[in-house]
Amino acid sequence: MRFGKMKIFSGSAHPALGEEVCSYIGQRPGYEDIQVGHYERTVFSNENIFVKLNESVRGRDVYLIQTMASPIHENIMESLIMIDALKRDSAWRINLVVPYLSYSRSDKKDQPRVPITARLMANIIETAGVDRYITVDLHAGQIQGFFNIPGDALSAFHLLSDYVKSLNWDNLVVVATDLGFVKEARNWGEALGVPVAIVEKRRVGNDEKAIAMSLIGDVRDKNVLLVDDEVNTAGSIVSAFNVVKEHGALDVSVAFTHAFFSEKSRERLQSVDLKKIIFTNTLPIKKELYLPNMTVLSVAPLLAEVIIRAHEGRSVGELFDE
Amino acid sequence: MRFGKMKIFSGSAHPALGEEVCSYIGQRPGYEDIQVGHYERTVFSNENIFVKLNESVRGRDVYLIQTMASPIHENIMESLIMIDALKRDSAWRINLVVPYLSYSRSDKKDQPRVPITARLMANIIETAGVDRYITVDLHAGQIQGFFNIPGDALSAFHLLSDYVKSLNWDNLVVVATDLGFVKEARNWGEALGVPVAIVEKRRVGNDEKAIAMSLIGDVRDKNVLLVDDEVNTAGSIVSAFNVVKEHGALDVSVAFTHAFFSEKSRERLQSVDLKKIIFTNTLPIKKELYLPNMTVLSVAPLLAEVIIRAHEGRSVGELFDE
Amino acid sequence: MRFGKMKIFSGSAHPALGEEVCSYIGQRPGYEDIQVGHYERTVFSNENIFVKLNESVRGRDVYLIQTMASPIHENIMESLIMIDALKRDSAWRINLVVPYLSYSRSDKKDQPRVPITARLMANIIETAGVDRYITVDLHAGQIQGFFNIPGDALSAFHLLSDYVKSLNWDNLVVVATDLGFVKEARNWGEALGVPVAIVEKRRVGNDEKAIAMSLIGDVRDKNVLLVDDEVNTAGSIVSAFNVVKEHGALDVSVAFTHAFFSEKSRERLQSVDLKKIIFTNTLPIKKELYLPNMTVLSVAPLLAEVIIRAHEGRSVGELFDE
Amino acid sequence: MRFGKMKIFSGSAHPALGEEVCSYIGQRPGYEDIQVGHYERTVFSNENIFVKLNESVRGRDVYLIQTMASPIHENIMESLIMIDALKRDSAWRINLVVPYLSYSRSDKKDQPRVPITARLMANIIETAGVDRYITVDLHAGQIQGFFNIPGDALSAFHLLSDYVKSLNWDNLVVVATDLGFVKEARNWGEALGVPVAIVEKRRVGNDEKAIAMSLIGDVRDKNVLLVDDEVNTAGSIVSAFNVVKEHGALDVSVAFTHAFFSEKSRERLQSVDLKKIIFTNTLPIKKELYLPNMTVLSVAPLLAEVIIRAHEGRSVGELFDE
Amino acid sequence: MRFGKMKIFSGSAHPALGEEVCSYIGQRPGYEDIQVGHYERTVFSNENIFVKLNESVRGRDVYLIQTMASPIHENIMESLIMIDALKRDSAWRINLVVPYLSYSRSDKKDQPRVPITARLMANIIETAGVDRYITVDLHAGQIQGFFNIPGDALSAFHLLSDYVKSLNWDNLVVVATDLGFVKEARNWGEALGVPVAIVEKRRVGNDEKAIAMSLIGDVRDKNVLLVDDEVNTAGSIVSAFNVVKEHGALDVSVAFTHAFFSEKSRERLQSVDLKKIIFTNTLPIKKELYLPNMTVLSVAPLLAEVIIRAHEGRSVGELFDE
Amino acid sequence: MRFGKMKIFSGSAHPALGEEVCSYIGQRPGYEDIQVGHYERTVFSNENIFVKLNESVRGRDVYLIQTMASPIHENIMESLIMIDALKRDSAWRINLVVPYLSYSRSDKKDQPRVPITARLMANIIETAGVDRYITVDLHAGQIQGFFNIPGDALSAFHLLSDYVKSLNWDNLVVVATDLGFVKEARNWGEALGVPVAIVEKRRVGNDEKAIAMSLIGDVRDKNVLLVDDEVNTAGSIVSAFNVVKEHGALDVSVAFTHAFFSEKSRERLQSVDLKKIIFTNTLPIKKELYLPNMTVLSVAPLLAEVIIRAHEGRSVGELFDE
Repeated sequence: MRFGKMKIFSGSAHPALGEEVCSYIGQRPGYEDIQVGHYERTVFSNENIFVKLNESVRGRDVYLIQTMASPIHENIMESLIMIDALKRDSAWRINLVVPYLSYSRSDKKDQPRVPITARLMANIIETAGVDRYITVDLHAGQIQGFFNIPGDALSAFHLLSDYVKSLNWDNLVVVATDLGFVKEARNWGEALGVPVAIVEKRRVGNDEKAIAMSLIGDVRDKNVLLVDDEVNTAGSIVSAFNVVKEHGALDVSVAFTHAFFSEKSRERLQSVDLKKIIFTNTLPIKKELYLPNMTVLSVAPLLAEVIIRAHEGRSVGELFDE
Repeated sequence: MRFGKMKIFSGSAHPALGEEVCSYIGQRPGYEDIQVGHYERTVFSNENIFVKLNESVRGRDVYLIQTMASPIHENIMESLIMIDALKRDSAWRINLVVPYLSYSRSDKKDQPRVPITARLMANIIETAGVDRYITVDLHAGQIQGFFNIPGDALSAFHLLSDYVKSLNWDNLVVVATDLGFVKEARNWGEALGVPVAIVEKRRVGNDEKAIAMSLIGDVRDKNVLLVDDEVNTAGSIVSAFNVVKEHGALDVSVAFTHAFFSEKSRERLQSVDLKKIIFTNTLPIKKELYLPNMTVLSVAPLLAEVIIRAHEGRSVGELFDE
Repeated sequence: MRFGKMKIFSGSAHPALGEEVCSYIGQRPGYEDIQVGHYERTVFSNENIFVKLNESVRGRDVYLIQTMASPIHENIMESLIMIDALKRDSAWRINLVVPYLSYSRSDKKDQPRVPITARLMANIIETAGVDRYITVDLHAGQIQGFFNIPGDALSAFHLLSDYVKSLNWDNLVVVATDLGFVKEARNWGEALGVPVAIVEKRRVGNDEKAIAMSLIGDVRDKNVLLVDDEVNTAGSIVSAFNVVKEHGALDVSVAFTHAFFSEKSRERLQSVDLKKIIFTNTLPIKKELYLPNMTVLSVAPLLAEVIIRAHEGRSVGELFDE
Repeated sequence: MRFGKMKIFSGSAHPALGEEVCSYIGQRPGYEDIQVGHYERTVFSNENIFVKLNESVRGRDVYLIQTMASPIHENIMESLIMIDALKRDSAWRINLVVPYLSYSRSDKKDQPRVPITARLMANIIETAGVDRYITVDLHAGQIQGFFNIPGDALSAFHLLSDYVKSLNWDNLVVVATDLGFVKEARNWGEALGVPVAIVEKRRVGNDEKAIAMSLIGDVRDKNVLLVDDEVNTAGSIVSAFNVVKEHGALDVSVAFTHAFFSEKSRERLQSVDLKKIIFTNTLPIKKELYLPNMTVLSVAPLLAEVIIRAHEGRSVGELFDE
Repeated sequence: MRFGKMKIFSGSAHPALGEEVCSYIGQRPGYEDIQVGHYERTVFSNENIFVKLNESVRGRDVYLIQTMASPIHENIMESLIMIDALKRDSAWRINLVVPYLSYSRSDKKDQPRVPITARLMANIIETAGVDRYITVDLHAGQIQGFFNIPGDALSAFHLLSDYVKSLNWDNLVVVATDLGFVKEARNWGEALGVPVAIVEKRRVGNDEKAIAMSLIGDVRDKNVLLVDDEVNTAGSIVSAFNVVKEHGALDVSVAFTHAFFSEKSRERLQSVDLKKIIFTNTLPIKKELYLPNMTVLSVAPLLAEVIIRAHEGRSVGELFDE
Repeated sequence: MRFGKMKIFSGSAHPALGEEVCSYIGQRPGYEDIQVGHYERTVFSNENIFVKLNESVRGRDVYLIQTMASPIHENIMESLIMIDALKRDSAWRINLVVPYLSYSRSDKKDQPRVPITARLMANIIETAGVDRYITVDLHAGQIQGFFNIPGDALSAFHLLSDYVKSLNWDNLVVVATDLGFVKEARNWGEALGVPVAIVEKRRVGNDEKAIAMSLIGDVRDKNVLLVDDEVNTAGSIVSAFNVVKEHGALDVSVAFTHAFFSEKSRERLQSVDLKKIIFTNTLPIKKELYLPNMTVLSVAPLLAEVIIRAHEGRSVGELFDE
């Protein structure tokens, strides 16, 4: 009780996930009464969001579940506004559970005169009054260092790789669709006991837009699992699909954590012959964007378990035998 | 030169205003080369905004002009991202020129468990790295106190009231459409040398939505100027129009600073017989929302003058004989 | 117990109020041993205040009751010094209970080159180490936003208006003595079911000191209740009294929260024929300043209840059915 | 000009010193137009201090001269309020010139549950917005470390000791009136080329108030110069006078920096046969407290020189051949 | 339990002390399972220190025992790194137990253009995430004011003086080896009921290195106890020994808190005929540096008791009847 | 001059580099008088470092050149102490030029209960008072985001790759010695117009220490350039050498930025037949560790140019045509 009684709120970005997490927690002895907290949300005609908590959070250990789904800027701002309301209502500890942290890819100045928006995100989250955060698969591990507050940067890696293992695919090779995902691809290779290859993109000549794709490593006569952290337009997936096919790959599937899908993504993913498209529900997906070859794994049990451990002050690392 | 050479950027919220301000500044001797700074703005498929400044701002006195127009959350976030880019490119002083500061009306906790979003806005603007701000007609003067950094909280009052004076309307009474705008209505009354009345809204009985409108003061056989700070749906304007008409008013006009208009506002404003609708360009207005009885006054000369004085370290107060 | 055991200290500004609050708390089961904490206070010959707590506050949930009575600067500084002592003695949570927050009226820059001292007050209170504050009737609701820490900004409105209701005055109209108090006057009107009028002050001509008083609304043949938040010299009260009398008012009474009285106030209040002068004890009043028509209502029960709820982590809002 | 043009304000604590400093600065070529800045100061009937600067300080290098004379809490608060006004009027650099920093003696926790008010003072000065400070003879050198901002902690030691040297007293011994001033006494001894002795105070038995005074070192048949940093009631001076007389001292004089005098001090200083009482004008002294054997040395030339060097970015240390 | 369950870690600077403290705590009912926490420490070939905690500290009240022994910079950095690891593992409260705080002597700017490193130390300790500190015999009491966080600045004075009292030495005089230690010497004198003398160092002529040593007070035919806070090269001890011997002292012993010994210290301490060398184990001492006349008193019981009281939220002051 | 006149100091970590940088700057017109600033550095017997600047830095634009060479912790602490001295001497802007930023590899929590020391480093550098930093080849680009202050994160990539290009090696393939350096290897490949391969390390079975090395991509009958950012023990280099040799590589060379060499590195580098070992002087190298096949390229011209541009407020990006 040193953090106060648990209270959970779920923002408007992905209500189904909030409900699912609460439902898992509610099955745990001692947490039977956990439900998503009530609050009112109004959007005025000048687009201002206004929230009013209908339940007092004084002295509580509050978990605000809010992923940064579309429309992201509204959802980011709603998060901050909720946090301000929680802080001013004297919550004792405020935990932001943000399964998908937006702007993660803007994490370095790889050219002059650009922002590092991921650090800006960390700064404004801390400024608003968050004490701890829980997130899933940051684009780069270093983003944890953008936060000065403690947090649980979880990974859906086990969830995804255990599922792939259960499929018993043979003759497999893991292929990173991007050089920035090579280490994670190696971990996939290690977990599945298979080799790794990499799609390399390179500028050619002086034309900035002329990109040559090549493959480092070997996929001929192998089944391929493309791996990535986030898929938006699915452009990289389609390019990688083509590259591995040109190099003689057999079946091609893809696994990733965050699905920020649009109509365009659906079209692209449909345009190539992917055996399986495996990802998680860190982001909500509109029904009309589903494809028959998609498998969505839920991060709700993982989040529920970590929330309980954070609340009870028990190790999260030991969840993963670490 | 103690603040560095002047450099102006204009965000994507209201480019016309940025251009107009620069044009005014460029007419001043010594500022002939002032132009809106170049930068690239990309929105990725995961809705992330990315900016790249095309001109170095090292050691410069930078003015970022960005009003918080629709879509406000994108424009707020763009402001912060621009500021981060300016800061990391070593601007010597960063001034945020934000003619309309969003969330100004969320400035107090008048019920339990609500946020004070206007303070949150000030906090995240400061966190991002702004050194000074310039704004127009905050919803409440106290919002300046939400900032810990110095700023110029300007008013369009003189601009609007000088215009109304030039119309030589007689037999006039100023009417505040809301109790929260009474002091400003008194200032209008003082400036025009006319009396003041007030529309009062009051809850009746236990039904929270039953609102009774009444008038404090007298408008019979008088021309009325309704005054307010911001008009969105124009609901208050229409109600006030009806109240003063019921109390025997003759011609009714309205003057306000910030026009956050939508199709609904246009319909409402059209539905009543307003002689004149007078406001400023702190926010952009789509052409299709204009009505023949609208007059838009530009704040650009005011902003230009204040930017020059801020840059030169000269008094802004003396602009207003204060 | 997540905040530690409760401990109450009362500064030297208004010991009677501290005692009264403790006495109320001590009547609650489980709080029988609550007493005002002991500390020594010395003022050296160089006017330096020195305090020494005689009771350890390690790990405690401490409530320091200190209103900002005369001499205000000594009392402000004493508050800060007490807070530093509490912080350095490792109090687990420090709550400043400040029924009357000084400098509340210096809350905006309504002319150039002036301070916003109310924000400064909030800053130095936070800097000293306060975790939460409890206060009564801030001059403006926005002052809550000057604080970045949570707080309970209570109102004596119910206390005062319930008392007035109990007097069963008929034929009443509520009159705001100042334009800045119009919203609160409306709330009075709503609570008592009576109309509202307003005293307007306006500068005339170029002479800054020439102020014209007028009345917006109607008081003829009505009993009047003047309402305000704070009364010092009672100048506004007397002016308002005269204005309403000139407009044909019958009996006139006055109700307000904070009485910062001096000999001058007493004289002025005596000089006009007020039926009743109703206010609270957020500030101490010297016996010789009492008048027979004064009624002082105690905020101690309210403060006691809120302190208990803050300590137990229970809703304060629900106290007021909110 | 990197700090902006110089502007000097003098608070209401010690106007004569402010004038004298400006007069010295004004004699320097290039500074002929330096004068004490104009501002209005009002104290309302609720004791709130209000200031309004009558001259713009935008982009200026401002020096606020305000010693912490009686009434100290008003003067402290006035300093903070002035600083807030300067900050909000966009001064480019704010220097607080505080010849006597109050609460310097509350610089450590030498018993449990007491504050360290000198650190609190540094914190609130920094919070208000000061960039640099200039002060004279802090009670302990460590107090500079309470500030995180840079500052010039000057000493009146040379001023005082050069004067004493000019008196050509022979057969002298320097006596520290307190153990805490022994190092400074050694510096006096070094400067004058004479030995040092110390008055020791010691508690005797269990009675906390029973203090035994003794002398470490030798003063028999010698002239004595008592040295200290600050004199209030002069109690220590009188005790030390008696101790050295008991040990056979001849003439006794006293030198110190800060004279925080009251009627009581005058009486005490008159009650013993001091040859000379030498101190500075870091604090104002009422005419009626002067005694014929007092000599007041002015710190104005020192402050003026340091302000000029701070403004020009020239070494202050080299002033003292350091 | 408001701070979480106790967990103790001991850095690599002085493992024996950590073990001893834990052993004392473990003897207390309710603390039987307290043991030094496990962690791995690696030093890479680029000298980077890496730590991994082997036990979760989520929600715990953690005490990191780490004195700043040789090599001090490695040990300082290790402290900060440990604190970062504790913070990021969501410890609920982090207490740094640092018996010897390095850089304590760099506590003021007694010449221009030098740092105040003790304040820097406080700043970086706070920045790393420490909530409270426990330390022994700071070089100056003011250093507590360098910290903005609460702490227990303990003293080994009682430990040392009780031991000396138990030796029943007669005809004793306490001699401060340095002017900066005079107040503490007086406390020694008070505790032992004996007089005090002081070794004075003074520069002679213009040669900065020519230092004259003299004695203020009397030691002839007396046994002498030299007292100090920290002994490094023992240069001051040897000088003081010679001075008191020249002035006719009989037996000479020395007592101090912190022994930062080197081979050179051993040689120097051996070179003079000290009866007893008494100090504590705030720092580890290599076996080969021990001398037969040394007595080492352990601060472990004191630290253990204070840790328990800090954890339980009980007064530490009352430990010392304060 | 808005930042003040330039002043350069060089810490004791790598004096030759400081001299070389100053020498380059001194060749630029207008900078002829630039020399390394004088300061005294003392290490006391308790290992405390003390510095005293011999030249005033009031109002200056100061560049402190201090790489984090061995002994790193002393050099880190010396940096912080120098910065404190610069800050307290009122430098107007403090730039830390740290060619090799230590602890860069501790940039993420890739296992539970470990620190992110690179963020800690950024925090303490900012806390000490640095306004801007200049560094070379951070281990990960994200580390720039650990800083909230602006900085120039330079790269030696052009320096190294231009040199390799000048050697006109044919039949080359670039090989990343570690998966974390793949993107940079691709940049090398792009710059040299050659393919890329990668050494993959993978854990095998349950034994944590059993690491399998494999090669992704092809090197048979090719000359190999191994690339990395930092070389310490050269273990990775030797492993990579062996892997590429096993896969049929011809000549093998290696290029990297930071050489943190020890005797062990020299032995290892000597043990394999490397054609060329190319690196920079961001770190000093002892003469006895040089090998005949080593080529050291100086970063001094790059640092000098960037310092000049930072001082003059000119773009650094345009240096690299960006």
